[in-house]
Amino acid sequence: MESLKKTFDYLQKEYPHIPLLLDGKRGDIGNTNQGTIEFAFKYLGAHGITLYPLMGQEALSSFLNLKDKGLFFLCRTSNSGAEEFFDLPFSGSHRLLYEQIGLTISEKWNQNRNCYLVLGGTHMDSLKRVREITNHMIALVPGIGHQGGQIASFQNLSESLSKNPLIFHSSRSIIYASKERDFAQKSRQAALEMVHEIQKLGDGLW
Amino acid sequence: MESLKKTFDYLQKEYPHIPLLLDGKRGDIGNTNQGTIEFAFKYLGAHGITLYPLMGQEALSSFLNLKDKGLFFLCRTSNSGAEEFFDLPFSGSHRLLYEQIGLTISEKWNQNRNCYLVLGGTHMDSLKRVREITNHMIALVPGIGHQGGQIASFQNLSESLSKNPLIFHSSRSIIYASKERDFAQKSRQAALEMVHEIQKLGDGLW
Repeated sequence: MESLKKTFDYLQKEYPHIPLLLDGKRGDIGNTNQGTIEFAFKYLGAHGITLYPLMGQEALSSFLNLKDKGLFFLCRTSNSGAEEFFDLPFSGSHRLLYEQIGLTISEKWNQNRNCYLVLGGTHMDSLKRVREITNHMIALVPGIGHQGGQIASFQNLSESLSKNPLIFHSSRSIIYASKERDFAQKSRQAALEMVHEIQKLGDGLW
Repeated sequence: MESLKKTFDYLQKEYPHIPLLLDGKRGDIGNTNQGTIEFAFKYLGAHGITLYPLMGQEALSSFLNLKDKGLFFLCRTSNSGAEEFFDLPFSGSHRLLYEQIGLTISEKWNQNRNCYLVLGGTHMDSLKRVREITNHMIALVPGIGHQGGQIASFQNLSESLSKNPLIFHSSRSIIYASKERDFAQKSRQAALEMVHEIQKLGDGLW
């Protein structure tokens, strides 16, 4: 916890122009959410957080009311086995659970324009589909690198990307780039390679 | 965080026979879950934890492999607005999302007999239904007290309760029983009243 606080403090001091996102995957009822809000935004100074949407809009209203924070709702995760619940089809609409989550957040929850989606970079079909039905809502894309997602596979989305960006996210490929004494150098190299891959997708992307 | 650790330490020392459950509502991919496991079970010494099932069995396998811990999966929460996703019907089976969660955990995930469900005490229909289709799986029942759930309304379940208990859970009605200097006394009184209500349901319940 102390290391997390120190990391946030360091990043805020050295790179104040970069938004900081806490991948906490939280989501509870009102008074518990208030504790998370204190911790993430007041104590750590994060600008955004990842959240489970499952408990519904009313439970999450204390997050949704935060007009100047970014709320990234898990819509379709990148992990192997995510299809067990996310890809189940509903009756009537025949939407899959992840489509229903995307639509609900896009059409109902986003009154304050502070909602974003988490769409796994390992599952291009769901990502494209949700972008289509949510008017290309901005999404955080985990699963790049270690989990198998490749930035090059987003080439054919590049037109929509310039207006409605995706935020590519890679953890293990960068922070575990080396276990030797050169870990800082290797991590920097892995991060720069990722930036280079993103820039190849189109002008103005980074 | 320190207060939480102190509370766990105190309870372990004074009441070693009472299982301690961390209502953390966690659930992530493997290596992040490992951090939660360290924190909840090794550092705090909890015996069980509440989890989001949404990312699927494979992602949660590091929890599911813990044979001596209790895993309480959110199946149908007690909060107002929980129906937004939990009560949506799937095509084909026409099961609601919460039924699908209950069945999946009961039939597939519970190889180590360490799985339990969280079923809100404010929504008796879903609770009864999930108990039926999961062979009366043991469940944690939040929402008693402040959120409106009443223990007396479980009277007609008392036969199944003696074999397959429910664990009633009340937070705010107890910890916020008084804001005055008599808070300890009032909290004790609220807890004892709840125990009394539970005992009225049948012999051997507590």
